[in-house]
Amino acid sequence: MPGLITADSDLEGKELTEKSSNVVWHHATVTRERRERQNGHRSVILWFTGLSGAGKSTLAHATEERLHQMGCRTFVFDGDNVRHGLCSDLTFSARDREENIRRIGEMAKLFTEAGVMALTAFISPFRKDRERVRSLVPHGDFLEIYCKCGLEVCEQRDVKGLYKRARAGEIKDFTGISSPYEEPDDPELVVETGTESLDASVDKVIALLRERGIVDQAAAE
Amino acid sequence: MPGLITADSDLEGKELTEKSSNVVWHHATVTRERRERQNGHRSVILWFTGLSGAGKSTLAHATEERLHQMGCRTFVFDGDNVRHGLCSDLTFSARDREENIRRIGEMAKLFTEAGVMALTAFISPFRKDRERVRSLVPHGDFLEIYCKCGLEVCEQRDVKGLYKRARAGEIKDFTGISSPYEEPDDPELVVETGTESLDASVDKVIALLRERGIVDQAAAE
Repeated sequence: MPGLITADSDLEGKELTEKSSNVVWHHATVTRERRERQNGHRSVILWFTGLSGAGKSTLAHATEERLHQMGCRTFVFDGDNVRHGLCSDLTFSARDREENIRRIGEMAKLFTEAGVMALTAFISPFRKDRERVRSLVPHGDFLEIYCKCGLEVCEQRDVKGLYKRARAGEIKDFTGISSPYEEPDDPELVVETGTESLDASVDKVIALLRERGIVDQAAAE
Repeated sequence: MPGLITADSDLEGKELTEKSSNVVWHHATVTRERRERQNGHRSVILWFTGLSGAGKSTLAHATEERLHQMGCRTFVFDGDNVRHGLCSDLTFSARDREENIRRIGEMAKLFTEAGVMALTAFISPFRKDRERVRSLVPHGDFLEIYCKCGLEVCEQRDVKGLYKRARAGEIKDFTGISSPYEEPDDPELVVETGTESLDASVDKVIALLRERGIVDQAAAE
């Protein structure tokens, strides 16, 4: 932690730990485990990654809808609720993009601690950044879901006209065109968002959550 | 939003809105309202503010315990889970402290959107910073709770020895000693944490939530 020690209450917990184990100053009694029991499911990060146009947000929101109907607590992070808020101070420089993913990871971690399933929908093209988020949380809390969809398909969809602009040179460092997308080496799940139906992809995600014991068998069926 | 337009999926929602209202690309169907219905209570930010040693964290955690037992979804933000994670890149400079409070506000906002009550326990000595958070969220979503406790009491408690060190000049810009604490002008609640019992303070917070319709009357009694 950089800087001078100050009286910010941020440090209260830390100071306490460092100074004395006898003094009980404040203590979190509502743990993640109690929250998970209350909710009837475990919390987890579902990290959707893939090219622009691969359908990450669509899949994340469809998965959330299914989970909500199953009675689960969920939240989807995407550009709308992150770039304009928590990360509004960041540019699109390489360094700031890395920081963007870092903060999303830290925030998703807090959501899992709060008992909520965090679904994130960002291209997150670099292995290093994704692995960094994975390393933030306990083993099994980070499920990487690769939304696999050929560049041709994404570019043909081009729902937002971004590929066209990237080809025209109007957009710099466009993933898949002028900047690399690093495929996951060993993702927890691959969904073929270029060919399979949205429902089929959602089924696969739910099946993964069932296998991992995140949601119970009965609830998921 | 600074910087060049790029293909980061952060921009998907925005690009869509700007470009066409006909294309339904992705759509959040699980709204805050549905989450609140699922949880059986409204979400809100409970912003505890006050001097170091005033008992903000203690009160926040005790309130959370009570709310959890009432079946509510809650999360407490404090130095332990923020300064070492989301804000680990920040120093204690005036500018970074302001950014620290800004990010906490943005994060608390996302928690309310996820249907979770966000309890924050930071000195947050400056009116400007607190008002900035208030302005982030819809009217009624930010409840400022002033943990009022005389400096003498806080300094006498000095559980962590911080006041002693501040008086000795070892800690710079220590709120109440070498840096001002700006009392809230019109907080939603004042709790006299220097004199009243912890239970009495928690009762007041719960009563406030009941009055505001955040938790229902029956559940709170």
